[in-house]
Amino acid sequence: MRLNQFARLNPDHATQIAELNTIGLPTEKASLAELAHATYQAFEAQALTASAKDEALAERAATTKLDVAAFLAGNPTSISREVFYTIGLQYLGFEAGIDFQYDQVLEFCKQTRLPMVAGDITSQAEFNAAIYLLLNTRSKHLVTLIDLLATKGFLQHLSGNFVIFNGKTLPTFDTHKVIRERVWIESDLDSDADGQRDMLEATIFRPGETADGVKSPALFTANPYFHGTNDVTAVTHVPEPELAVKPARKQASAEPVVRPDLPQREVTGEVTTAAAYGDEDGIYSLNDYFLARGFATVYSAGVGTRGSDGLRGTGNQDETDSAVAVIEWLGGTRRAFTTRTGTTEIKAWWCNHNVAMTGKSYLGTLAIAAATSGTPALKTAISESAISSWYDYYRENGLVVAPGGFQGEDADVLAVDTYSRLKAAGDANKVADKWQARLAELGADQDREFGDYTPFWDARNYRNNVANIKCDIISEHGLNDWNVKPKNVIEFHKAMAPLSAHHKLYLHQGQHVYLNNVLSLDYTDQMNLWLSNKLLGVDNDALNQLPDVTIQDNVEPETWTTSADFGTGAGISTQDVPLGTDKQTFTDHSTAEFKAHNDTSDGFEFNIIQPESIYGDSRIVLPLLKPEQDLVIEGTPHLSLTLSVDAPSAITSVRLIDLGEAKRFTPNAGLVEAAGYPLGYDFKSANILEFKNAPKPTQAKLISLAHANTQNPISPAESIVTAPGTEVTLELDLQPTHYHLPAGRTLALIIHGADQAQTIRPTREVTYTLNLGASKLTLPERN
Amino acid sequence: MRLNQFARLNPDHATQIAELNTIGLPTEKASLAELAHATYQAFEAQALTASAKDEALAERAATTKLDVAAFLAGNPTSISREVFYTIGLQYLGFEAGIDFQYDQVLEFCKQTRLPMVAGDITSQAEFNAAIYLLLNTRSKHLVTLIDLLATKGFLQHLSGNFVIFNGKTLPTFDTHKVIRERVWIESDLDSDADGQRDMLEATIFRPGETADGVKSPALFTANPYFHGTNDVTAVTHVPEPELAVKPARKQASAEPVVRPDLPQREVTGEVTTAAAYGDEDGIYSLNDYFLARGFATVYSAGVGTRGSDGLRGTGNQDETDSAVAVIEWLGGTRRAFTTRTGTTEIKAWWCNHNVAMTGKSYLGTLAIAAATSGTPALKTAISESAISSWYDYYRENGLVVAPGGFQGEDADVLAVDTYSRLKAAGDANKVADKWQARLAELGADQDREFGDYTPFWDARNYRNNVANIKCDIISEHGLNDWNVKPKNVIEFHKAMAPLSAHHKLYLHQGQHVYLNNVLSLDYTDQMNLWLSNKLLGVDNDALNQLPDVTIQDNVEPETWTTSADFGTGAGISTQDVPLGTDKQTFTDHSTAEFKAHNDTSDGFEFNIIQPESIYGDSRIVLPLLKPEQDLVIEGTPHLSLTLSVDAPSAITSVRLIDLGEAKRFTPNAGLVEAAGYPLGYDFKSANILEFKNAPKPTQAKLISLAHANTQNPISPAESIVTAPGTEVTLELDLQPTHYHLPAGRTLALIIHGADQAQTIRPTREVTYTLNLGASKLTLPERN
Repeated sequence: MRLNQFARLNPDHATQIAELNTIGLPTEKASLAELAHATYQAFEAQALTASAKDEALAERAATTKLDVAAFLAGNPTSISREVFYTIGLQYLGFEAGIDFQYDQVLEFCKQTRLPMVAGDITSQAEFNAAIYLLLNTRSKHLVTLIDLLATKGFLQHLSGNFVIFNGKTLPTFDTHKVIRERVWIESDLDSDADGQRDMLEATIFRPGETADGVKSPALFTANPYFHGTNDVTAVTHVPEPELAVKPARKQASAEPVVRPDLPQREVTGEVTTAAAYGDEDGIYSLNDYFLARGFATVYSAGVGTRGSDGLRGTGNQDETDSAVAVIEWLGGTRRAFTTRTGTTEIKAWWCNHNVAMTGKSYLGTLAIAAATSGTPALKTAISESAISSWYDYYRENGLVVAPGGFQGEDADVLAVDTYSRLKAAGDANKVADKWQARLAELGADQDREFGDYTPFWDARNYRNNVANIKCDIISEHGLNDWNVKPKNVIEFHKAMAPLSAHHKLYLHQGQHVYLNNVLSLDYTDQMNLWLSNKLLGVDNDALNQLPDVTIQDNVEPETWTTSADFGTGAGISTQDVPLGTDKQTFTDHSTAEFKAHNDTSDGFEFNIIQPESIYGDSRIVLPLLKPEQDLVIEGTPHLSLTLSVDAPSAITSVRLIDLGEAKRFTPNAGLVEAAGYPLGYDFKSANILEFKNAPKPTQAKLISLAHANTQNPISPAESIVTAPGTEVTLELDLQPTHYHLPAGRTLALIIHGADQAQTIRPTREVTYTLNLGASKLTLPERN
Repeated sequence: MRLNQFARLNPDHATQIAELNTIGLPTEKASLAELAHATYQAFEAQALTASAKDEALAERAATTKLDVAAFLAGNPTSISREVFYTIGLQYLGFEAGIDFQYDQVLEFCKQTRLPMVAGDITSQAEFNAAIYLLLNTRSKHLVTLIDLLATKGFLQHLSGNFVIFNGKTLPTFDTHKVIRERVWIESDLDSDADGQRDMLEATIFRPGETADGVKSPALFTANPYFHGTNDVTAVTHVPEPELAVKPARKQASAEPVVRPDLPQREVTGEVTTAAAYGDEDGIYSLNDYFLARGFATVYSAGVGTRGSDGLRGTGNQDETDSAVAVIEWLGGTRRAFTTRTGTTEIKAWWCNHNVAMTGKSYLGTLAIAAATSGTPALKTAISESAISSWYDYYRENGLVVAPGGFQGEDADVLAVDTYSRLKAAGDANKVADKWQARLAELGADQDREFGDYTPFWDARNYRNNVANIKCDIISEHGLNDWNVKPKNVIEFHKAMAPLSAHHKLYLHQGQHVYLNNVLSLDYTDQMNLWLSNKLLGVDNDALNQLPDVTIQDNVEPETWTTSADFGTGAGISTQDVPLGTDKQTFTDHSTAEFKAHNDTSDGFEFNIIQPESIYGDSRIVLPLLKPEQDLVIEGTPHLSLTLSVDAPSAITSVRLIDLGEAKRFTPNAGLVEAAGYPLGYDFKSANILEFKNAPKPTQAKLISLAHANTQNPISPAESIVTAPGTEVTLELDLQPTHYHLPAGRTLALIIHGADQAQTIRPTREVTYTLNLGASKLTLPERN
């Protein structure tokens, strides 16, 4: 187990003493033994009397012979490092004699990456420093010791306001008193064209202490799924059997959205208490962790969801403006009402007007979207697994390309899925016709026939508006996320580079998942440091303390490396890798083989990269490199591929793979401890996960991939007519990655036709002729 | 979806009106429309003002054209059944136009097993009756409508005391105020022989309202796992390679435990507030469901666990007495202290002294154990998947037989696993030698060499003491539980038959799992009816209302049948099934094959019953019946098997199987809705599960099985010497079952030697000669 830690500050001794005193710990007693006794007694917060505390100390070992109470009763004038950390490890949740051996305490701390003081403790000052360090050390239960002690009541005497320790906010709020309420925010939209501003429901969880005058910052999650999804109604497309031949054409940019000025609702009164109880639960453990620390959490599903007005539009401007409207209300610059149709105003009077957005996938996407508005109350966003351009989610280089695992999904399907107004049948029946018209419009405009980058998609590319971003942003993404592919986060990162706003990047080796529950990284603490700074104004130098780029290694478990940038700057070089000198040819039978073998999308993803494959005839496998030393690819591999096909249009797919029998990580992190990660005192807990090797070796692993229509060699926004048999050169950016290829394994490129898992499934069997001599792969590497 | 329901009472109209008024619903208004409006407004409990309530009514559909608010605004003088249930289904969580179609409302109710009133509603009295019925109807979220409404705040105005509705207790307690505390109970034991009574820790969750004078009943779960398990330290046995040859011998019964009289601790004071906070969470959603209903929940891990004195004994008298001590304290007849070593007494002053035990597996086992003490404060137990004799868990007919899935486990292994004192290193170090001595004693006495029913096991057979049971008991068990096998519950059921105390039986088609989260049965409501009666004295005729025996069908999903008894009485007959007329012979190579194929225990369980099997040479497969009409086996199949072996001792295993390609249920219920089952207002929720067919057909399924040592043809407690080649007749009770064998499938018997998954793994290859003509299977059937 390696408990890596980046969010621990090392303040000077005076600050440490002051902070220890702030949380009620003594720092000076008649003797070292007395100080230690008083400190450990305080640690036993679940014990409420002195004798109960001493009993608890008698249950912990100082040595194999002496329990802690007995050891201190001997009035020692010094405490050896071994004894200090034997005791300390038990507070951190490790079992003496089981997790660690008494005679290997220091070695265990080192292996586990736990910080230690330099020597034995011979003075009260040294004890204070050691205790301060221990309180800020990560525990077996993911959180730091002070957070772990808090779950036993250690901070109960501080209850009721913000307390900062080591630059981070402590869980000193009473989660039993959380107030749950709903309001309706008046937007500038009229997406259902009824002449009325769309009213947007928001559900708020705010600390009960706000009723006593505490002003809370707000974590806002724009969550289209919050009021449920229409999984039955949202029917995916059947991957089409014919690839359309496109005319030569060049797409225009999106027109800016112009909205009519709509009258504002009359206000007849104002109240401070909501008229509706929020009966739906929060959805994100990191939000809840901050709820226990005095941050309000706010969820709004947005336009066209249950309880709100309007229609869904899958990433359109309306959805961005929905999210911004909520921020503006939290920031004090927009109205909300106690009911959807009423005239009684309610302000976010309990809010300190500092807002951060959080969320994964569509939720993280809307955080990016809202940030591109530059709305001033938004102080930061923690955006996870987010789409930065919907073209990069549903299309690629002139092709329909489904998100991995969701073959046949498209913008219209997702609109149906999130149109939770359907669940309020009495409401939905009133706008049924408008909704059908909207669906027809989405179906037409998304253009599954040609797959080009049309104005519809340009309007859904948040990167167009990155220059408007005013706040620093954190992005987290899985390097194996084939649903929202890594290009989304890396292109966003590049787009932010010229701005004065900063972009921090966390890349893990999982798929489409959160990171806060992964044991080997102190992501939760880092976010605490960050949000304490951004929303509470704590002077903790979070911007410099957090690494700019943090990347998980895919070979060595529990290993996270940091760097100043991703795929560029110091340490990055590129290598041109030739593909060959000859021409090679293959015919794509994959659709027929897919049907003949009754294969599935998941099956295809597996089979297409295996050394022996049922799709062996429908691909070319090119072994490129077999490095003698470990190779680390970092950045966006680029393939210049010259080929001809015997058809007027064709799908070209390429997959960069790691070949060779080896044990590799499972696709996602596995369970370490169910409900082992406590979020606060007498409150929820979350599972602890970690990335581990699968028990069995595999033969191959996908590193990166790309798809292109042979009619789009110039750009996704421009199709050309290509006569069968004429060569075209496709300039393919593969998905960006950071991939550690161990020595002795083979880097290979697979070139094939239709991608049964992600593209449509054409029945026409196209023959491809690859001019390998005219082609090359440019590989970015970290040295 | 079928929402079967057994716990709904049908009181007379006057009672219904009174109960509706009790929960604050109006029953008379100026008109039917006004009454309906007021009622539905009340249902919208999440809306806190009249206008917010009307907005909520406008979100629900009465018809495709009219929402509920608009429909009632038309002042209808009658409400058709279609409209009433269109509205009602939406309150039950079903989506109009999605889950059900507007023109098929009544048909949907029928299919879903939802009760309906007989005709259209034309009067306020009819409306009241329909609403009463609807409130007591099961929802899509497992609980009844009134419980579902409660999660939105419907009962908040009643907060603070017990409210009974339809014979069941409502969730009217504030779970935010739950008090968590720990006490130490003074037992009569001195299992660590230090001359002091063992002190037993208990963790209590009690309603905050007890501080205001409410007296709560207690649900007590004796949970040896509560303070953690030593999964790393508890090393399982390697299945031995040699089957011992036993001498002829007959085992004695267990001697009664005699305890020395120990001095009681001096009491120097008494308090009503605990000195320790309970920082560990409850573990059972059904307990939490009752916590929201005013029942305290109490967990105690028992002797030898973290925070308590003493040593573990895997089902010995000490563990029974540990559980009884907690009940006695709750019942007011035993002392507890605020600390483990202190002298300040604390009484269960908040308890109404009525106790029920709950729990699954070891926890349910200790509930049975405690009930056999006859301790008067124990009013009932809900015992799930429980062991009733530890011999039936770790041994069988003179053999070591592991619980399914836990090859190599034994009494000593479980003792280590639950000896959580180890986690308190300072405590455990003080009794390390005593613990090693205890382990040596357990290892010797459990006798893995011979496997007979020795005094050690006789002392762990709770069925010896069934006559002492004073309280009615509920047992729940999986008919496919090969961990704690069904014999445990059925033999206990038979043992209770002569008593005046009643035994209710619930048998599902899963393995070693809870039943309260399975959607198709109202188990939770039934337990509410039962405990309201037993612990709160509610006069609801629970004893007659709940079926005596409830059994899930293994073919038709969501189907539960009830009967007056199991495997006996009306409807049960037996059939003698011949096995053949010849002699057949086979040699058991299974241990060699197991190793050669690198098989696992799970793999063996699968392979040994397949038509084609790698163990084909090591078994005889006897097709017995291929019924032309469905056959239902119910009871304990008995096999009289005459055979000889070419060895002085041998393992004989038999498996009764269902042969034939068919889709069958998955081994356990699958997820229907994560966190869909709400336990109270602003409180926890649990997952909803249901048993469903696996997507792919299987060839064979285990119905029942048995194992015996050829040296134990007389009894598990008596071994005889059998010369190689001489015939013995084994009288084998297979595991009891209720199994629906559809017409056209084959009932077959597989006879083999070692069971690689459950018995030891002898390397000697024994040849078996079966005298089929002298053998027969007696099959109990339900007609």
